Amino acid sequence: ALFLTASAYAQSDPLPSWNDTGPKQAIVSFVERVSKQGSTDFVLEPERIAVFDNDGTLWVEHPMYTQLAFALDRVKTLAPQHPEWKSVQPFKAVLDGDMKTLAASGEKGLLELIMVTHAGMTTEDFQKVVTDWLSTARDPRFKRPYTELVYQPMVELLSYLRANGFKTYIVSGGGVEFMRPWTEKVYGVPPEQVIGSSIKTEFKMQDDMPTLRRLPEVNFIDDKAGKPVGINQEIGRRPIAAFGNSDGDLEMLQWTTMAGAPARLGMLVHHTDAEREYAYDRKTDFGRLDKALDAAAITGWTVVDMKNDWKQIFKN
Amino acid sequence: ALFLTASAYAQSDPLPSWNDTGPKQAIVSFVERVSKQGSTDFVLEPERIAVFDNDGTLWVEHPMYTQLAFALDRVKTLAPQHPEWKSVQPFKAVLDGDMKTLAASGEKGLLELIMVTHAGMTTEDFQKVVTDWLSTARDPRFKRPYTELVYQPMVELLSYLRANGFKTYIVSGGGVEFMRPWTEKVYGVPPEQVIGSSIKTEFKMQDDMPTLRRLPEVNFIDDKAGKPVGINQEIGRRPIAAFGNSDGDLEMLQWTTMAGAPARLGMLVHHTDAEREYAYDRKTDFGRLDKALDAAAITGWTVVDMKNDWKQIFKN
Ligand SMILES: [Ca+2]
Ligand SMILES: [Ca+2]
Repeated sequence: ALFLTASAYAQSDPLPSWNDTGPKQAIVSFVERVSKQGSTDFVLEPERIAVFDNDGTLWVEHPMYTQLAFALDRVKTLAPQHPEWKSVQPFKAVLDGDMKTLAASGEKGLLELIMVTHAGMTTEDFQKVVTDWLSTARDPRFKRPYTELVYQPMVELLSYLRANGFKTYIVSGGGVEFMRPWTEKVYGVPPEQVIGSSIKTEFKMQDDMPTLRRLPEVNFIDDKAGKPVGINQEIGRRPIAAFGNSDGDLEMLQWTTMAGAPARLGMLVHHTDAEREYAYDRKTDFGRLDKALDAAAITGWTVVDMKNDWKQIFKN
Repeated sequence: ALFLTASAYAQSDPLPSWNDTGPKQAIVSFVERVSKQGSTDFVLEPERIAVFDNDGTLWVEHPMYTQLAFALDRVKTLAPQHPEWKSVQPFKAVLDGDMKTLAASGEKGLLELIMVTHAGMTTEDFQKVVTDWLSTARDPRFKRPYTELVYQPMVELLSYLRANGFKTYIVSGGGVEFMRPWTEKVYGVPPEQVIGSSIKTEFKMQDDMPTLRRLPEVNFIDDKAGKPVGINQEIGRRPIAAFGNSDGDLEMLQWTTMAGAPARLGMLVHHTDAEREYAYDRKTDFGRLDKALDAAAITGWTVVDMKNDWKQIFKN
């Protein structure tokens, strides 16, 4: 009887880290409408596709994207094999911890950093590098592994959707092979449901063993208008729910929600909690939320106010 | 009791269209080894990924690829809007039914045909064009819809693998958006498990509606060394079983099977049955099987002799 009661309680509150405010009500109402047979908004299970941005939607993206922290650490690790970096930008700036000069190197400088730290090895070797880094790296403010700085309310939301027949996908501007080694364990999202930016890879037989080598060349940028393109390329169905936090998610939310019947859910996580996490929107280098926030008011997307709508940010 | 018996019988013969020869035994033995808990070759369900080529492996590819037949028909349908095609190659050759001149136009001519017939519309419009065509087009020899010319033994194999916890994928040189409208119904393979060649698409807001428009530009060729690249890009796990029929599948079979433990299965469908279907291998324009046939002997891939190993080719 105790078990039954606990189970009934869990069923009645699938989102315990959410306050009982608008966003939680919008989520539960949407899920019930699309998953209850006989409902006018009923959607067959295979069509219940939900897409989630990652940085700033599922895990922390300040003071910088985690993948950028990885790239900077990687430059430091590789520096002894590259003595020339001491005098060549943007590497010098990284080694000197000079973020201002690094920022001034712009997109070109960042791309150079990414290529040097993300290419030139096999896909299997890169996976090991990422896994090893995540096991030791710590966030500077919270002093915790980055994979613990995922938003508990969003992890509950992912589970709740899956429990109601949804297939949950990550659709991120981040590198797909930077995410895949850990998304299954941390979010319950398997590698084949992770869509992201990528560099080109090349297949070769090497010493009679097949290998995929990562090349220093951009393949696909899964951001802004690239997100619906990536969704169509890899899923081939239009999602019915989309979750993001920045202007990079605008087109994904448009593609998902502006499609007539059945019911659709678009949601933006608004970072409003400087105390427990961060507060930022229209003026930040990482996760700017400006045009999409204006669009939300017009299109009826739900905006999550982290401070008021979330009981808890991270898992204790 | 009758029900139990029938069910037990079905369980004992999951592949009724296969003769009890080497390939069937290899399949059953492989599936039992990887799916029985306690087996030394046991593989956890999420890692049970099987990849299938489409043309010539799951459905007929002679006298020409079905997608090429579609493109030729499409040129004829669009011709009234393009009077200039009467005097411009390769369109003139298509309208005249002059296959020799068409072949002489080479890859460049074919690409031009593909772009004119596959691009310049939204993804949704293209899906409708494909679906409409398949509902009326008939194979010239068998006088049946192309989607009925799928190999019954392979359809049983797909089901058998799924019943044993496998996720089945199509990995084809054919166009991904040419396949997705019908693979779920015909093979039980949903759109998100279809990987193929693609042209670029562009996201745009048009009259306040989000659209994805198909552009006349190649995005990805999912053939030969492109197959392992596509598998890594979209699945992010290495398959444990691969099924193909031509040299275009060589690298996919290498990538799948030459990876040490756990047990792996590589299989080639050899077209040996001119009477019930077609007989071809080293010398054909569609589905040449040459290097991969030599490789099979060395690597231990199973070769299916259609004539001797399949009781039945198509569904009656
Ligand atoms: Ca984001
Ligand atoms: Ca083939």
